[in-house]
Amino acid sequence: MLLATEQLGQGRVADYIPALAKVDPNKLGFALALPDGTVHTSGDADEAFSIQSVSKIFTLALALRRVGSDLWTSVGREPSGSAFNSVVQLESEQGIPRNPLINAGAIATTDRLIDGREGDAVAEEILDFICARAGDDRVEIDFDVAFSESETGARNRSLAHFMDAFGNLRHPVETVVGVYFRQCAIAMSCRQLARAGLFLAMEGCDPLTGEQIVEAHRARRINAIMMLCGHYDNSGEFAFRVGLPGKSGVGGGILCIAPGQGSIAVWSPGLNEAGTSLAGAVALEHFACAAGWSVFD
Amino acid sequence: MLLATEQLGQGRVADYIPALAKVDPNKLGFALALPDGTVHTSGDADEAFSIQSVSKIFTLALALRRVGSDLWTSVGREPSGSAFNSVVQLESEQGIPRNPLINAGAIATTDRLIDGREGDAVAEEILDFICARAGDDRVEIDFDVAFSESETGARNRSLAHFMDAFGNLRHPVETVVGVYFRQCAIAMSCRQLARAGLFLAMEGCDPLTGEQIVEAHRARRINAIMMLCGHYDNSGEFAFRVGLPGKSGVGGGILCIAPGQGSIAVWSPGLNEAGTSLAGAVALEHFACAAGWSVFD
Amino acid sequence: MLLATEQLGQGRVADYIPALAKVDPNKLGFALALPDGTVHTSGDADEAFSIQSVSKIFTLALALRRVGSDLWTSVGREPSGSAFNSVVQLESEQGIPRNPLINAGAIATTDRLIDGREGDAVAEEILDFICARAGDDRVEIDFDVAFSESETGARNRSLAHFMDAFGNLRHPVETVVGVYFRQCAIAMSCRQLARAGLFLAMEGCDPLTGEQIVEAHRARRINAIMMLCGHYDNSGEFAFRVGLPGKSGVGGGILCIAPGQGSIAVWSPGLNEAGTSLAGAVALEHFACAAGWSVFD
Amino acid sequence: MLLATEQLGQGRVADYIPALAKVDPNKLGFALALPDGTVHTSGDADEAFSIQSVSKIFTLALALRRVGSDLWTSVGREPSGSAFNSVVQLESEQGIPRNPLINAGAIATTDRLIDGREGDAVAEEILDFICARAGDDRVEIDFDVAFSESETGARNRSLAHFMDAFGNLRHPVETVVGVYFRQCAIAMSCRQLARAGLFLAMEGCDPLTGEQIVEAHRARRINAIMMLCGHYDNSGEFAFRVGLPGKSGVGGGILCIAPGQGSIAVWSPGLNEAGTSLAGAVALEHFACAAGWSVFD
Repeated sequence: MLLATEQLGQGRVADYIPALAKVDPNKLGFALALPDGTVHTSGDADEAFSIQSVSKIFTLALALRRVGSDLWTSVGREPSGSAFNSVVQLESEQGIPRNPLINAGAIATTDRLIDGREGDAVAEEILDFICARAGDDRVEIDFDVAFSESETGARNRSLAHFMDAFGNLRHPVETVVGVYFRQCAIAMSCRQLARAGLFLAMEGCDPLTGEQIVEAHRARRINAIMMLCGHYDNSGEFAFRVGLPGKSGVGGGILCIAPGQGSIAVWSPGLNEAGTSLAGAVALEHFACAAGWSVFD
Repeated sequence: MLLATEQLGQGRVADYIPALAKVDPNKLGFALALPDGTVHTSGDADEAFSIQSVSKIFTLALALRRVGSDLWTSVGREPSGSAFNSVVQLESEQGIPRNPLINAGAIATTDRLIDGREGDAVAEEILDFICARAGDDRVEIDFDVAFSESETGARNRSLAHFMDAFGNLRHPVETVVGVYFRQCAIAMSCRQLARAGLFLAMEGCDPLTGEQIVEAHRARRINAIMMLCGHYDNSGEFAFRVGLPGKSGVGGGILCIAPGQGSIAVWSPGLNEAGTSLAGAVALEHFACAAGWSVFD
Repeated sequence: MLLATEQLGQGRVADYIPALAKVDPNKLGFALALPDGTVHTSGDADEAFSIQSVSKIFTLALALRRVGSDLWTSVGREPSGSAFNSVVQLESEQGIPRNPLINAGAIATTDRLIDGREGDAVAEEILDFICARAGDDRVEIDFDVAFSESETGARNRSLAHFMDAFGNLRHPVETVVGVYFRQCAIAMSCRQLARAGLFLAMEGCDPLTGEQIVEAHRARRINAIMMLCGHYDNSGEFAFRVGLPGKSGVGGGILCIAPGQGSIAVWSPGLNEAGTSLAGAVALEHFACAAGWSVFD
Repeated sequence: MLLATEQLGQGRVADYIPALAKVDPNKLGFALALPDGTVHTSGDADEAFSIQSVSKIFTLALALRRVGSDLWTSVGREPSGSAFNSVVQLESEQGIPRNPLINAGAIATTDRLIDGREGDAVAEEILDFICARAGDDRVEIDFDVAFSESETGARNRSLAHFMDAFGNLRHPVETVVGVYFRQCAIAMSCRQLARAGLFLAMEGCDPLTGEQIVEAHRARRINAIMMLCGHYDNSGEFAFRVGLPGKSGVGGGILCIAPGQGSIAVWSPGLNEAGTSLAGAVALEHFACAAGWSVFD
């Protein structure tokens, strides 16, 4: 397997919280999960990392399952053209975030997922869901990271209060961001993550359990959103280079879906200017090219 | 073939110029061009319509061929999150439009394509290129439409002067918009348009002439941009519903690329709120579903 | 004295909290305090009302007295051109609000005034200061209003967290907005308010106690800010019509300063579209005209 | 008379056109015109300079005289909170500029002044008006500057086309900007400018000719707009420091009105960051302080 060794150690490791800042920038993991259950791995594919915004995909799937298309009254489905934490469009569009993959949108999605329950129960549901999808009970929330997220979460709290001011939040801000910070702090390996994303490559059905996780059209919806909005202001570049729906996190992880083929997870902590893993994106580009999986060729 | 008869006559026909306003809203044409040269048609597939913004795809291909990746110093490759003619992001991003498929970006692309030549020569080059791709000399510029575009072109002139103020225009505004208005006024049929887009489905190579129109990676680039930015603020919805790179025009036409499979053109004048053909999009959705061509399943 | 009886009962009474919504819209009070201590009153001049944003003037004076010109590292001194609670400029200008009279700027000013102290002590300091300036101990905080402000304070909390995210807040958000909500809930009469503003008309010196409340150039600064920014998006209209520095509140009160001449307070609950007292502004216009006090004639 | 010799030669001379760039930065002129016709001068008060945006005051007076309050359907009267040539607010507010002293607003004002006439006649009217107010026929348009303005006028053309797109322009863009560029290119001395502004200090009446130039309430309106919007993003600072309505131009000139007292013109080419004459503003500050003319004390 081609690895992006030239890019290793380059880029900037996220340093807004200590737990992320101290990660070794030379790590590079790769895992490909196929519908038959095979997982091909390479490099640091078994080391757990903070999935951060990649978690938004799973929360979105859960929220769609729970509230259905009514979710779209709280959050849009179009690219934002702004930074991941911008509040400008939120003001001009009455507190409705552009899509579920920018921070405001993910917070709104989490709010809908809560659906009147306790925050702890919902955080647990998210974790259980990811464990089940990963086929591995060892996925867990890194509470050190979650605490730091909360400590530095002023911007996210601002977004939440802003939506609340427009009536677009159904639960107390601290309840919502409390769940949000914990989902961002989930730690798992490339192997686990690739496996966990497999249902999105298979029309919403987990091929190993046979369970229909979300309806086929919802899996399609999630994939389309990942393609158009998965990397903030770098989504266009990622679409061109990799040609697959993907979602990146500032922990250096990326989940990529090849519909009908499989699910790929990469991890390398050094980020490009848009907050996407530098070596991770290159590894995906090489792989998608070699496999002929880009949907644009 | 499934047709979107329920949506026929619904939506709003573009009425900012007389030539568009008087088109029969009940028209619906469909054409599918396959790599072997077969073109399957249905409905009003042989009637010429004003392709409007669909022309941006061909200008982009020509500009990339002429100036290569230096084009990206003049225009970006990311979704805009704004209306097709917004100037806000242009101000905050120093006169560099977000992508070549919003108006400002298409004007910047046309400016680069001109490359020191006379406007007439460039308009002719665009037309010749489209005729060659369509395999049909009868494609032509509707000068009545072009004149009306110019008459009502204040917003586009504003965008052009704005970019000029930032040094992002290499030719006089009137030269650039003169070409731009003419490319928007090209009239052709679904049959011709589907055939003309075929090279984008075949890694940049026209399968019938064997000519490599643009390099494979540039065809991929164009497809990725179409997927992410082809329908302004409706791109996310179109990606979900159709699952293919596409570009719509306010004349009611849509060009859709199914990489490796073929090229599809539809036409129906009634538009949805975002300016995309209502019945056209539904027809594409039905077809993509039936053919199993959505890249997100 | 001319009264604005035609406008009485017109306009919209602020209804975002119950305590404001139930105020009789037909109230109209007027008080003019002269440097010799005389206070001329008319109508409901002795009835207490919620001063709301008029309190920003007193907090500003106190903050300037406490931290001096270092305050201007936290907040600007220019008109905003946006609504009173807009967050857009806050994002483009890195969390520094435009001026101390929009909500974000008043929150930043309160934050600086706190200066490491307990919120309760600071709220008490503000109240004591206003009592001393009013020469009347009966001015008080309406805790019912303060509680309602906090209950509906999502937008203000959003602004506070937003500034916090940019490092422009020195105390916990709840401490700051806790003081802010209480200062907005101060209830006093026109007579008290006119008397309390007198030091701003007399180069910072309270003419009745002889105390130099703020330095002369700071009183000038406050007056200039009131003139340019005192009525949000209605500041230009107010400047033209009244021609004096003023600050309005959604409780229907307006404080107006006639430098060298006196201090005027009006109150009438019906608001115009920009949130300024309709009858109050007319009364001020008539008075300024009759007295020849507009600075623009 | 106090002069701002320390600031002389500091600041940045406007260099976007050659004619402005070559002006000696050490120039400093000052003129005070009193209602009795006396003009006190100091320094380079008899040297002509390019008045640039100061001309907006005279065009505004003429337009108000011609179309009356209907002018306010084309342009607002509130501070903008944005740069002098920003287009952002123009987009969110449907092509209506915030006030007549930002570029878009001055262009809209000129458009209304044209009122169906030839551009040449209108440019001549503006010049004649200024000559008459200055009591000096030697004021003239510097056609070298006017030509350069037009050559570099992309941003202003963009603003004009933008307003045209919203239906807020009644004449062809080139006619309007043709007049606008010429009014900006008017060259006159401090002595002439101070004399020309005198009617604004005397309730609209030219005290030397006895002519009522504009109604008293319109002079008040103009003064209020100058106070709130006369120096773009530096208006608040100027109001505090000088305390008088003023209008600056990038040629280094400033016209200041002291209602009831007189009219002041200063000129020094070095500009501060906001485009206001550095030494000029300091000279005005010293003078206003010494004369006790600030309206905020």
